[in-house]
Amino acid sequence: MHKQITSIQNFLVKEIVQLQEKSRVRKKKGLFIIEGVREISLALKGSYQVKSVWICKDIISLEKVNSLLGLTEETEFIIISKEVYQKISHRKTTEGIIAVAKAKEFDLANLELPSVPLILIAEAPEKPGNIGALLRTADAANLDAVIIANPKTDLYNPNIIRSSVGCIFTNQIATGTTEEIITYLKQNKINIYAAALKEDSINYTTIDYSSPTAIVVGTEATGLSDDWLQNATKNIIIPMEGEIDSLNVSVSAAIIIFEAKRQRNIN
Amino acid sequence: MHKQITSIQNFLVKEIVQLQEKSRVRKKKGLFIIEGVREISLALKGSYQVKSVWICKDIISLEKVNSLLGLTEETEFIIISKEVYQKISHRKTTEGIIAVAKAKEFDLANLELPSVPLILIAEAPEKPGNIGALLRTADAANLDAVIIANPKTDLYNPNIIRSSVGCIFTNQIATGTTEEIITYLKQNKINIYAAALKEDSINYTTIDYSSPTAIVVGTEATGLSDDWLQNATKNIIIPMEGEIDSLNVSVSAAIIIFEAKRQRNIN
Repeated sequence: MHKQITSIQNFLVKEIVQLQEKSRVRKKKGLFIIEGVREISLALKGSYQVKSVWICKDIISLEKVNSLLGLTEETEFIIISKEVYQKISHRKTTEGIIAVAKAKEFDLANLELPSVPLILIAEAPEKPGNIGALLRTADAANLDAVIIANPKTDLYNPNIIRSSVGCIFTNQIATGTTEEIITYLKQNKINIYAAALKEDSINYTTIDYSSPTAIVVGTEATGLSDDWLQNATKNIIIPMEGEIDSLNVSVSAAIIIFEAKRQRNIN
Repeated sequence: MHKQITSIQNFLVKEIVQLQEKSRVRKKKGLFIIEGVREISLALKGSYQVKSVWICKDIISLEKVNSLLGLTEETEFIIISKEVYQKISHRKTTEGIIAVAKAKEFDLANLELPSVPLILIAEAPEKPGNIGALLRTADAANLDAVIIANPKTDLYNPNIIRSSVGCIFTNQIATGTTEEIITYLKQNKINIYAAALKEDSINYTTIDYSSPTAIVVGTEATGLSDDWLQNATKNIIIPMEGEIDSLNVSVSAAIIIFEAKRQRNIN
């Protein structure tokens, strides 16, 4: 028999709500929440360990969950009432399934890179929608890693998971301070191309991206910190010709990444 | 003396609130609302006619508004209380200035194009954030026009104006049905490159964009309608190599637009 929870007063329900809402609780417990069949299955594919799956049988059957996800015996199933589901669901969708998964350590030391990697680095991105779009672009381009420098946001924030449409699970991700990451890149002889509106910045299309490459983008508001500009192999710009000269950060990153891809596919 | 309004019960206040909230009212009156000094000044630069400017003197002085905007005598100034400002401001910022402007007709027939135009066409985009990002990209690339096919949203929606950071005013814009736009493009001998996941789609980097070019993108959910695919000069794809194969629509558009720009700058 699976555990059943019908009361929103149950302490496990309160724990889930806290995991949804509080970055502090996620960090302390090393756990986070995944909603939706597609997202859970991408997390499993990305070697995430799913501790428990909460199922609202009024919406989705246990058999369906089993056939869709192929979970192991280590995963606990909890059958919940509609009321409990509505309480713990952040998205308020009608999928009827929520999982508790074990967070990964996003250590630089754990990255496994090929000999000529193509990496995206974003410094201090704040908006979950931008982080999600960056991760979608990284997935589509099959980048070797995404590194977040000086993170401002817990990557297991439900809004990031949602806006990444699951790409948080398909990318190899690391976080670190800007200093740590620069040291890592230099140790690994990876070229640093920093997107920055500087006088000495050169057109991004003139760079040869066939060597080990890290493309670095900052926030729309403040750009990159001086550490990046001073340690970059080259500072690069996307030439702008409009009245406003303002591209969304995920758009800028994508333009440069796909230029690198174009060059690599020709060679 | 300028008109003063201190009561949120004033009928003019109610009219502004309706212009903010209701697309129907905007269309009927041919008016819309602009918030913020920067946006108003971009609208003036884009030849928009500003009918009235509402100023909260507790926040910004009349002299400052005059020096920043250089408005003509045709513009009526209305001095408002903080309470009225808070009632009519959609953004809840502290700029203290809101304008009522005359909407433009987004007629295809009014477009003024150079001999070898580069145009972006988006079919039925829905999310204001995506439309804003498309307009920012179009501005940065100095595209000759942005055309919205089968629009789902009034472009003077306050969320579109905000997310475009004023690029709604700096781009040449037209709207029309997909059929009207295809006819227009054919009459003007403009090549149609439709971004679509079709079997016969070719890699977007293999296209020569040096001729008159329209890049056409659909929605993330449903893609482009058959009319575009059947009438395209070529259907094109951005090759994706990830697990999810999903790019944000404004990201896809930017990748193709900036490849066209790259080619045109080399030639």
